[in-house]
Amino acid sequence: MKITAIPAVTRLIRTALEEDCGNGDVTTAATIPEDAVAHGRYIAKEDGILCGMPVVRAVFDEIDPDIALKVNFSEGQSFKKGDILAEVSGNARSVLTGERVGLNLLQHMSAIATATSAAVKQVEGYKAKITDTRKTTPGMRYLEKLAVRVGGGTNHRFNLSDGVLIKDNHIFAAGSVTAAIEAARKSVPHTLKIEVEVEDFQQLDEALKAGADIIMLDNMSCEDMKKAVDTVNGRAVLEASGNMGERDLREVAATGVDIISIGALTHSVKALDISLKFRLV
Amino acid sequence: MKITAIPAVTRLIRTALEEDCGNGDVTTAATIPEDAVAHGRYIAKEDGILCGMPVVRAVFDEIDPDIALKVNFSEGQSFKKGDILAEVSGNARSVLTGERVGLNLLQHMSAIATATSAAVKQVEGYKAKITDTRKTTPGMRYLEKLAVRVGGGTNHRFNLSDGVLIKDNHIFAAGSVTAAIEAARKSVPHTLKIEVEVEDFQQLDEALKAGADIIMLDNMSCEDMKKAVDTVNGRAVLEASGNMGERDLREVAATGVDIISIGALTHSVKALDISLKFRLV
Amino acid sequence: MKITAIPAVTRLIRTALEEDCGNGDVTTAATIPEDAVAHGRYIAKEDGILCGMPVVRAVFDEIDPDIALKVNFSEGQSFKKGDILAEVSGNARSVLTGERVGLNLLQHMSAIATATSAAVKQVEGYKAKITDTRKTTPGMRYLEKLAVRVGGGTNHRFNLSDGVLIKDNHIFAAGSVTAAIEAARKSVPHTLKIEVEVEDFQQLDEALKAGADIIMLDNMSCEDMKKAVDTVNGRAVLEASGNMGERDLREVAATGVDIISIGALTHSVKALDISLKFRLV
Amino acid sequence: MKITAIPAVTRLIRTALEEDCGNGDVTTAATIPEDAVAHGRYIAKEDGILCGMPVVRAVFDEIDPDIALKVNFSEGQSFKKGDILAEVSGNARSVLTGERVGLNLLQHMSAIATATSAAVKQVEGYKAKITDTRKTTPGMRYLEKLAVRVGGGTNHRFNLSDGVLIKDNHIFAAGSVTAAIEAARKSVPHTLKIEVEVEDFQQLDEALKAGADIIMLDNMSCEDMKKAVDTVNGRAVLEASGNMGERDLREVAATGVDIISIGALTHSVKALDISLKFRLV
Amino acid sequence: MKITAIPAVTRLIRTALEEDCGNGDVTTAATIPEDAVAHGRYIAKEDGILCGMPVVRAVFDEIDPDIALKVNFSEGQSFKKGDILAEVSGNARSVLTGERVGLNLLQHMSAIATATSAAVKQVEGYKAKITDTRKTTPGMRYLEKLAVRVGGGTNHRFNLSDGVLIKDNHIFAAGSVTAAIEAARKSVPHTLKIEVEVEDFQQLDEALKAGADIIMLDNMSCEDMKKAVDTVNGRAVLEASGNMGERDLREVAATGVDIISIGALTHSVKALDISLKFRLV
Amino acid sequence: MKITAIPAVTRLIRTALEEDCGNGDVTTAATIPEDAVAHGRYIAKEDGILCGMPVVRAVFDEIDPDIALKVNFSEGQSFKKGDILAEVSGNARSVLTGERVGLNLLQHMSAIATATSAAVKQVEGYKAKITDTRKTTPGMRYLEKLAVRVGGGTNHRFNLSDGVLIKDNHIFAAGSVTAAIEAARKSVPHTLKIEVEVEDFQQLDEALKAGADIIMLDNMSCEDMKKAVDTVNGRAVLEASGNMGERDLREVAATGVDIISIGALTHSVKALDISLKFRLV
Repeated sequence: MKITAIPAVTRLIRTALEEDCGNGDVTTAATIPEDAVAHGRYIAKEDGILCGMPVVRAVFDEIDPDIALKVNFSEGQSFKKGDILAEVSGNARSVLTGERVGLNLLQHMSAIATATSAAVKQVEGYKAKITDTRKTTPGMRYLEKLAVRVGGGTNHRFNLSDGVLIKDNHIFAAGSVTAAIEAARKSVPHTLKIEVEVEDFQQLDEALKAGADIIMLDNMSCEDMKKAVDTVNGRAVLEASGNMGERDLREVAATGVDIISIGALTHSVKALDISLKFRLV
Repeated sequence: MKITAIPAVTRLIRTALEEDCGNGDVTTAATIPEDAVAHGRYIAKEDGILCGMPVVRAVFDEIDPDIALKVNFSEGQSFKKGDILAEVSGNARSVLTGERVGLNLLQHMSAIATATSAAVKQVEGYKAKITDTRKTTPGMRYLEKLAVRVGGGTNHRFNLSDGVLIKDNHIFAAGSVTAAIEAARKSVPHTLKIEVEVEDFQQLDEALKAGADIIMLDNMSCEDMKKAVDTVNGRAVLEASGNMGERDLREVAATGVDIISIGALTHSVKALDISLKFRLV
Repeated sequence: MKITAIPAVTRLIRTALEEDCGNGDVTTAATIPEDAVAHGRYIAKEDGILCGMPVVRAVFDEIDPDIALKVNFSEGQSFKKGDILAEVSGNARSVLTGERVGLNLLQHMSAIATATSAAVKQVEGYKAKITDTRKTTPGMRYLEKLAVRVGGGTNHRFNLSDGVLIKDNHIFAAGSVTAAIEAARKSVPHTLKIEVEVEDFQQLDEALKAGADIIMLDNMSCEDMKKAVDTVNGRAVLEASGNMGERDLREVAATGVDIISIGALTHSVKALDISLKFRLV
Repeated sequence: MKITAIPAVTRLIRTALEEDCGNGDVTTAATIPEDAVAHGRYIAKEDGILCGMPVVRAVFDEIDPDIALKVNFSEGQSFKKGDILAEVSGNARSVLTGERVGLNLLQHMSAIATATSAAVKQVEGYKAKITDTRKTTPGMRYLEKLAVRVGGGTNHRFNLSDGVLIKDNHIFAAGSVTAAIEAARKSVPHTLKIEVEVEDFQQLDEALKAGADIIMLDNMSCEDMKKAVDTVNGRAVLEASGNMGERDLREVAATGVDIISIGALTHSVKALDISLKFRLV
Repeated sequence: MKITAIPAVTRLIRTALEEDCGNGDVTTAATIPEDAVAHGRYIAKEDGILCGMPVVRAVFDEIDPDIALKVNFSEGQSFKKGDILAEVSGNARSVLTGERVGLNLLQHMSAIATATSAAVKQVEGYKAKITDTRKTTPGMRYLEKLAVRVGGGTNHRFNLSDGVLIKDNHIFAAGSVTAAIEAARKSVPHTLKIEVEVEDFQQLDEALKAGADIIMLDNMSCEDMKKAVDTVNGRAVLEASGNMGERDLREVAATGVDIISIGALTHSVKALDISLKFRLV
Repeated sequence: MKITAIPAVTRLIRTALEEDCGNGDVTTAATIPEDAVAHGRYIAKEDGILCGMPVVRAVFDEIDPDIALKVNFSEGQSFKKGDILAEVSGNARSVLTGERVGLNLLQHMSAIATATSAAVKQVEGYKAKITDTRKTTPGMRYLEKLAVRVGGGTNHRFNLSDGVLIKDNHIFAAGSVTAAIEAARKSVPHTLKIEVEVEDFQQLDEALKAGADIIMLDNMSCEDMKKAVDTVNGRAVLEASGNMGERDLREVAATGVDIISIGALTHSVKALDISLKFRLV
């Protein structure tokens, strides 16, 4: 099944091509013959984890399905600076039209996969899973969350309807942690777990008693997280959250939490440097 | 004129809301009464340059035009950690529905404006303008380039049709720098300047002779850039390019180049930390 | 928050209007003056539960926001044959343009709410909740599932990504019920429960041991369901499924299952008869 | 010519897939290997008339054109409970992704074709044609009207611009039946017939005199319809309408009317039960 | 009811604005203050019939609903060179953004209305109606056919489904004129008339006998048309067609045909010259 | 690279097919068997320059990629009345579905190319290039500007963001010609030239001094244009504009201007007469 079976991916690719091509590549039209052929190599300029080649393929498919793309690494595979990640060849005008859009996506997704993989490695040996958040780039949520999975992480909810997360405002409006949990359990699909964000141990206790499935510990010290793990003792999943991108993940994982969710994986990565060098024939 | 007069902005906002809301906020629907009212404050958690409030407004307009948004800083204005950037109030369900999408956009755009502003400050006193590239986030090019302008930079071409940039492949296919420039001048709209990327001083000379309007110096040492500036002596605009995000911009500007284009402004910024805290009524 | 904050609703309304209006109402254009005013009444031709008036409002908003719609019953309220459910007035051409689309939606949604409400009543006194399935009308899933909630039911998963449902093929491919559950728990978002469809008591036992959160009993006799309830004894949620539209729901509920999911609620309802009679002024 | 040459069909299929797949089938992704192959059989669980297989094909084409679909019955052909209507095989993930959307469409369209066919059989021997109305499911009008044709019926107008139907409001606004007919004849495309809905014999006479091409008899007794047939005596097409889904169609046809239009064909059918059972390889 | 109730109109306006605005008006942004106000006058540079002001209004509504548009002539009204057709005022940036798109539409629609009106005048005193064809500008059919009506003409079918037109290929495939007419009558909606294009008098006779409602005379001499009118003697509507844009319409009308359809009305008009001159405040 | 790599082209084709096909070709469905094959020839009914065959190909690709289209002339090639421009063959229903849309586009684009070619021939021997304007048909700008290039012309700016054109209002708002040019140079992308429309020689002088790259002479006499050419003496590109469609282009070119921009090329062409005659097999 191609990645474009997800309509949001097709739409993003088309939007990206449209904003990049405008009314056509005037430079290429002026200088490169219609039947010129280009060969190109995607070369890693730094180490990383590959992610996004099926999207690059889909970008070229939009423009010209006859473009050949030979990918040398699988999604999620690590590579070294200097590695030739893939080779592309086909009509020069077509290849140049899709070049930048493909690269922009590839560099961004590989950056996320690489950052996720690094986080996963930091917590190795602990049970904590690395997950993302809803702090994603508008329009790119599916691909960014895919990159997190490719990097070895798992996904938090995709949107406001496929996960329950009771926060301070919900608690305030419902009257209490217990009331909020009961209200949610009564009305949301029975296929969803109930997650509650707690600010202190009193709320933690109340959430546990009310049967919360997941408890989010927001911006807690590792000491407090440890205490929470002991208190909960397996009766709920514990998720550490809040500026985790700037915390010592190994220390957090050592507290025994089940999940560490990190917004920075998707909202603050530096594009991974991959170059695409052509020669024409 | 509202920012949504640019259709790409409206589309991005709708896409972002759709991917974030899914089939509706189940937690909020379960716990917050239909007529609850929320007041919220956008608080800076670090210093920066504001950018994106009209987009936040447009996000809320999509959901519920009755939401009030009082913005305390103008676009491009600098703020300090702790400043209250804006205040929002309105139907609690509506506000919560648009919260994350608005924040994601605001944090990203403010990050770009802040990074641009910092780059502009670094070259202060020199004539060099800071510009962006086509290395933007797919689907967000218009907003990212707007953020660059808000941060004090100017824009490079938006897409492949509204600027001519002759690179190695075009030169190879055309036969020579001169041939490529002549081919472009003959066929592209007369409203566009001709820019050529040169790799050495021989190409630079040829480009000058052929009447290039702009010459891009790719990954050159500052010494070489200085030499290029002397050689060109005002006969063409000189643009420094290539990993400028990792160069000493002041040193580059000191060479006398006219333009410094920086991909990192748009592809590698860390989200600027702005929080939105609510209370319900 | 208006119902059109869900983009799928806006799209459906626009699609429906476009398919119904074509190139404009030629009969009305020929016979009714531009400034004629119409008053209309939505009259129940049979008893039922109201659902869909906000959608009717949204249909008229697309055409002409000046159309007034006074709704006499709230969503989910029961009405009797002969009741005047709502009154509409406004520009005659506008009202006639939206009439049929609004009615088609209102009759369908009210039919679903009415059927759901009847099912809920049948199981009154038992803990069983009535839920829907993914057997919905293409393009109308959001509105149909909303109608189920308005009728007193709850929703099963909206789509393949916001609920886990392990069926025979998944079990076969994974190797065993246990393997499938473990595979799912390892990779799906931690916010989702794991549901398994079982065909016999051996699979039920295995699912329980592997920690399934929800167990679906497919096409079981009430006797077997009762036995399953006893076996599970609260360790998992039990969902009765399979042609429930043709079963005695009270008897099913009496077995003690937690959830009864009924495809017929959305795929086999008869439009509820509501007429709209106008007079022109 | 493929059914997707009608853009509304393509749009509906994409909408349906998007609402059903969401962010991807998490269960299948977790448990079924990427290269698993599935074979499935569409089996009739009750007698009926087949309709919708080209749409099922189009659904699979959207996801993965390599899926093979062998259809054993032609559109409009009758089948018996137990018949294998079609066989599908291909990549298991692809097949499972399209399964439910295809089935939902197939069951709905076959239900309409089956109901239409039954109505056509009831009036066999009489000249009356069975037609549909504009009481269709929003977004599905083209496919529902196609199903009516496949079932042996014909179509009434598709929308407000491709048929003229003068009703009470139009008559009131125009001043008289005659005035309305004349106004319509003057301004609507000359390619359209003029249809008038009459409430009594005085209006019928007036419509005839004014040269109406089609006269709709709304909610008339069979006795009155017979009288109308005699009165008209071939000078106009006579259409019986109004809750025809609950009338004895044979008795209606026996009056000699030309057309019987039935809203229930499209708005009140029960999904025809067709199952799809897989095995993986 | 606003013209944008027709979705195709809204789509066209948005497409037009997007293709004209690109990434924003860089000239205006550079030179005109955000709060400048512009007043403009639409001045006729030649005589004509006004058509398209509601579309101009809709263009401005897309950009900025606060723009005021005072229209001095009604749709279909004739004006003289020098007349001030309308006045616009509002935010200068907004007005300039919509200026060209509005003018392009207004000049094209007024040109069509003017050409239609001239044709109608030529046939004054005869019963012949002037109609359009399907030879319209892609994407603009609705507005072009509206302009024909505004100019005093009527519309031929809008598309292939809302009119029956049997041509040589259909006759060939069906076997004969009679067979084609019978096939059409059997399957097309009963709300549509049957039109047949005939090439000679033998076909004309056959079409009449088979009960064609409309007979199209393609590229016939006036003499032959006269003969056809005599032959038909009111038993069918007669439509003259084929390069009517280059015929003497009065002579054609004098033959007694009912309809003259002219492709040139929509595919070959010269934009009517209307200028828009601003002053800023 | 196919022409549909430009998304605006794909969208236009789909829009055009949708508006022309409606709910399907009822005549063809009634009379032509599903498996009939049609062969057709595109025959020139007048001399011209071919433009649009790739678009015709794209139209058929949308409907049925198996349709064969053999094109006998290349884009931009001149043909004579009677020439067979192309031959099409394939499924009769498919071919008939795309016939009119393809022809409408082909006739319009060929008309523009032919008109452009004629203009180019008129100025032969002079350096003046023929260009278009923004006075294009809404939705067709890309194809119309392509046709201008195919006819031997070049393009003016595509939209408001890819060219700077300072007009009277901009000058007024900025305070002076000089101020407007400086404001533009400071803020617009450095890749764009600065064009100024001048009304007299004083403005011309000021524009020259301020360093305008292009100066537009609006509605000037040839005498004045000559004088402007002498004054400018190569220091800027000179563009003649304003009702050029009605001027003697050779006389204008003889003044020595560099560019002649003609709105009539796109807004006032008469469809070039090309017929498509079929025979069925």
